[in-house]
Amino acid sequence: MRLHGFFRSGASYRVRIALALKGIPFDQTSYVLRKGEQRSPAYLKMNPQGLVPALELDDGTVLTQSLAILEWLEETHPEPALLPRDPLERARVRAFALAIACDVHPVQNLLVLNAVRKLGQTDEQVNDWAKRVNADGLAACEQMLAGTKGPFCFGAKPTMADICLVPQLVNARRFGCDVSGLTRLLEAEAACLALPAFAGAAPERQPDAE
Amino acid sequence: MRLHGFFRSGASYRVRIALALKGIPFDQTSYVLRKGEQRSPAYLKMNPQGLVPALELDDGTVLTQSLAILEWLEETHPEPALLPRDPLERARVRAFALAIACDVHPVQNLLVLNAVRKLGQTDEQVNDWAKRVNADGLAACEQMLAGTKGPFCFGAKPTMADICLVPQLVNARRFGCDVSGLTRLLEAEAACLALPAFAGAAPERQPDAE
Repeated sequence: MRLHGFFRSGASYRVRIALALKGIPFDQTSYVLRKGEQRSPAYLKMNPQGLVPALELDDGTVLTQSLAILEWLEETHPEPALLPRDPLERARVRAFALAIACDVHPVQNLLVLNAVRKLGQTDEQVNDWAKRVNADGLAACEQMLAGTKGPFCFGAKPTMADICLVPQLVNARRFGCDVSGLTRLLEAEAACLALPAFAGAAPERQPDAE
Repeated sequence: MRLHGFFRSGASYRVRIALALKGIPFDQTSYVLRKGEQRSPAYLKMNPQGLVPALELDDGTVLTQSLAILEWLEETHPEPALLPRDPLERARVRAFALAIACDVHPVQNLLVLNAVRKLGQTDEQVNDWAKRVNADGLAACEQMLAGTKGPFCFGAKPTMADICLVPQLVNARRFGCDVSGLTRLLEAEAACLALPAFAGAAPERQPDAE
């Protein structure tokens, strides 16, 4: 398999973690997002959204959207599981993952920040936008874990929730967001980063890291 | 079951369609979003994100995030299926649904438009933002259906892709987005709206419609 992504892309980071947890080897092709390499005609043929990541299978089939890729990995490589078995618990894990993937990540990604900048905002104002989106979103995520057991988001094993959380915390800090009060999220992050699959997927450990 | 939502909320609309397709009766509680009713302390206890929809089960359990609710419905009420059986086809349907749920809908929702307005933008500029997000996003969705069979997004039956598409087209038109060139999307929409489950879930058919 080949992961088309970028070291700093949070959505690519999710897929790197999942592939590593499942023990699936993969190659990487890097697209420098701020140079718009993900909008080249060749890449748009693979993914008309012009977004990373895309996962190219050995037969040339291309999958897009990180959470759809995670679900596909779960269905085709079930062990270790990234979702609990009980439908209600699965719904909680997915809701947490989607709270990040829908309501935090896309509202603070490069595309939207560039659009905010085009409205005449300074770099500081653009950063404030991203900081606020992360602060509000992650505060809600902390509440979503109220009453859950640690050390991971939902118990003793990492799930899709943790796979979305860890990259988002990297983003939050990059924008200067104070995450020190989010104790359950930080507990889950620490448990994740103790695992080689998470640690090895970190942006700074990728071949295209700048 | 009780759906906590709002007639005009695209994410609530998705859940209304899915419940109707599955033949599950439900009651509704309405939250007027522009009045901030979804941020009342009582609602925040149910959903710390302060977003609609939330699905309250008969035992008081609350599920949030529309796509997590759809997956839960699919797992607990499998017929009629909202996803194909083949993992690769499921990945395609989910990618299309997520392209709307992650990259279009949240970037043009009330929360973000209010944030754009606060940057000193006029009503027209705010509308242009929403229009552009819908136009770009739906154009990519049209491309994602290249080579697929109709009349629905992915063949002869409606899936989660159609459930996300139909509400988004309502939004797109509301912002004045010209969707007339998106022929595959319009074909799928027409097939959907011929079904009572989709037609009955439309915003204007809800008890709280203004």
